[in-house]
Amino acid sequence: MSSSRLLDRLIEALQAMPGIGPVSASRIAFNLLDRKRDDALRISSVLKEAAEHIALCPDCRNYCDAEGEKCSICSDFHRRDSGMLCVVESPMDVEAFEQSGAFHGTYFVLHGHLSPIDGIGPEELGLESLGKRLDEGRVKEMILALGQSAEGEATKQYLAAMARRRGITVSGIATGIPMGGDIQSVDGLTLTTSLEYRRRIG
Amino acid sequence: MSSSRLLDRLIEALQAMPGIGPVSASRIAFNLLDRKRDDALRISSVLKEAAEHIALCPDCRNYCDAEGEKCSICSDFHRRDSGMLCVVESPMDVEAFEQSGAFHGTYFVLHGHLSPIDGIGPEELGLESLGKRLDEGRVKEMILALGQSAEGEATKQYLAAMARRRGITVSGIATGIPMGGDIQSVDGLTLTTSLEYRRRIG
Repeated sequence: MSSSRLLDRLIEALQAMPGIGPVSASRIAFNLLDRKRDDALRISSVLKEAAEHIALCPDCRNYCDAEGEKCSICSDFHRRDSGMLCVVESPMDVEAFEQSGAFHGTYFVLHGHLSPIDGIGPEELGLESLGKRLDEGRVKEMILALGQSAEGEATKQYLAAMARRRGITVSGIATGIPMGGDIQSVDGLTLTTSLEYRRRIG
Repeated sequence: MSSSRLLDRLIEALQAMPGIGPVSASRIAFNLLDRKRDDALRISSVLKEAAEHIALCPDCRNYCDAEGEKCSICSDFHRRDSGMLCVVESPMDVEAFEQSGAFHGTYFVLHGHLSPIDGIGPEELGLESLGKRLDEGRVKEMILALGQSAEGEATKQYLAAMARRRGITVSGIATGIPMGGDIQSVDGLTLTTSLEYRRRIG
């Protein structure tokens, strides 16, 4: 217990953030109160606005500024190749691709993977909306960039079937040795799969 | 840039917190938006309330719930020895003492140390209010628990003179080997000072 009940409540509330335990929460609270009250008010106001307004883009289910609006990636159709659709599990995966600068197509965010035991079926992943998107006929190739778990594999099979029924090419990003990684320190399954994904040189 | 300008603003605002860089800020933002919007609203509301209302206790200058109110430590006068006054640089130092459970006296928080070059003089540290507290006659011993910097030393001298003028005992917490620490890994200055602070055994 600190010298102020309100401060105790602040330290407790901050611990809802991932990776923030009691020690970091105290440090953040004291620091903001000490000389950064304007920053604290700004964080409070943006956080409220974000929690109340950020919604899912009707096209790709990534985060967008408000209910019914398209996200800034889907709005940017001039710069995007709508023939390539990359399906990912979470908005953070989109961030990772965008930061790599390697992909100029569009995305679809599942927000999870099929997991019947947790009640997550095609509807929860927005697959009806994905089906409509594929029906529009612009997508030529669907790239699956999903996790390597058993549920991820099942989801890939389901999505691949959806694409094939519509005559759309399906691919999956490669499994292999990370850039700069060394062969001795990679697990056997990755190594096995990196052989399957091998590519002819020259 | 993410898929939402509001999300970008949130990630940017969160980086005002100490120890939170762009990667942690993204992780926090996505996590709160994903399944913890209620937590986000609660953090927002407590943070606003804290930034607007938390003030300094008129007795000890530690944080209290509202302007003009005493902090919960100063309010707890039944359980406190008002003859012992521990002077610290920051509210986090009070937290550290309180968590140790070793001190049952009262505190005075300077919020810094004397630093004429930065324009921090006795007034900025609330020393007039400390003087009044010492004049009340309840304090028998003033314990200085300040940092070991040059400015910390100058502040100690100034505070010691204030106490001596009023016939109040002044002490400083010991410098020495941390509990469980080993002698070889402690710096020479700490070792030298640990000799000066030595205590007769038996």
